[in-house]
Amino acid sequence: MDNRVLDLKKTILENNDADAALLRQEMKDKKTFYMNLMSSPGAGKTSVIIQTAQRLKERLKIGVIEADIDSDVDAVKLRELGIRAVQTHTGGMCHLDAAMSRQALDAIGADELDLVILENVGNLVCPAEFDTGACLNAVILSVPEGDDKPLKYPLVFQISNAALINKIDTQPIFDFDMDAAEKMILERNPLCTVFPVSAETGSGMDAWCDWLFGQVRQWLDI
Amino acid sequence: MDNRVLDLKKTILENNDADAALLRQEMKDKKTFYMNLMSSPGAGKTSVIIQTAQRLKERLKIGVIEADIDSDVDAVKLRELGIRAVQTHTGGMCHLDAAMSRQALDAIGADELDLVILENVGNLVCPAEFDTGACLNAVILSVPEGDDKPLKYPLVFQISNAALINKIDTQPIFDFDMDAAEKMILERNPLCTVFPVSAETGSGMDAWCDWLFGQVRQWLDI
Repeated sequence: MDNRVLDLKKTILENNDADAALLRQEMKDKKTFYMNLMSSPGAGKTSVIIQTAQRLKERLKIGVIEADIDSDVDAVKLRELGIRAVQTHTGGMCHLDAAMSRQALDAIGADELDLVILENVGNLVCPAEFDTGACLNAVILSVPEGDDKPLKYPLVFQISNAALINKIDTQPIFDFDMDAAEKMILERNPLCTVFPVSAETGSGMDAWCDWLFGQVRQWLDI
Repeated sequence: MDNRVLDLKKTILENNDADAALLRQEMKDKKTFYMNLMSSPGAGKTSVIIQTAQRLKERLKIGVIEADIDSDVDAVKLRELGIRAVQTHTGGMCHLDAAMSRQALDAIGADELDLVILENVGNLVCPAEFDTGACLNAVILSVPEGDDKPLKYPLVFQISNAALINKIDTQPIFDFDMDAAEKMILERNPLCTVFPVSAETGSGMDAWCDWLFGQVRQWLDI
């Protein structure tokens, strides 16, 4: 039975990969930078997005796609802060794929935007397997989750261009070895750039935003 | 494309449900209580299991099935503490199903054990959809993840007989409303029993273990 499940999955993944590549090219043509942000539930995706949007809003036209199985609390929160946001419900699905991304990008009016950030479903496993069509993947690991997560969930770190280690303000009370975490991430993906941050205090957020802005400029060719 | 994915999934789920019901009956006949423990990555599943095994080891013969995509750090840690444990690798799968459970229960020698605890893959989404054949589901929500998780990941709370709110020792530094979290859980599942605990300090662990022991006694008819 396991093999059958995996075979079906392979076909789905191959179809999705082709669609994602097409979507990436469409976004390139439209000069829209589409970024996929992944993490466990509660690692701080929404807070990081708010801090990022507030730092880059003078330089870029930004939109946010919220993907959740249920509820719209995140999109409501963003809109209250003046950030353009659409809420998508995945209908129980544990990830967003390229087809769902395309619908959401249409809904938010990606043509008019420089940067669209997807807040993927809180899950370190499945979102890593489905290419959303984004031109940049980022993952958040939060200090309370522990430094061994790159060991247990390798794929999401392998496919991410950036890893934000969030909630560093809580490091004194958790047994989290920052050097060990960074080392494990870089062993899985030497090209990943690691940013220790706190979306609560703002620590490290400037470095992350400057790096992201550089990536967007390169993509938009400005 | 979305519909096709969901149709395939429906067949897989239906086959799995039948297999899970069969496995549950087999465990009943063998007088083994099989418990499925779910949570986000880093919410404290391993620590809760260690505390639970240490409190119940004089009363029950206990084994632990570790399910991870990769690594065997958890099983090694448990064995070093004298707890019988097998490590399973899901081969990239984001959850355990009934067929994988059966293999793992055979491997650990479930016939000789009173209580087998499955540490499912760290994921609040997919494990909730796949019945493992367990006779009890428990979910851990940790304080640093935030009190809104029952709103965003309703299914795992709907199917859980018990919800442990872990890391309550860190409540002073996180903005976590315990009453709100409990209320949201009970709205989704009025039959869920909620246990505020800290696997770090041991707080609340006796209440959880006494309740679990009661459930095991009832199942084993002792």
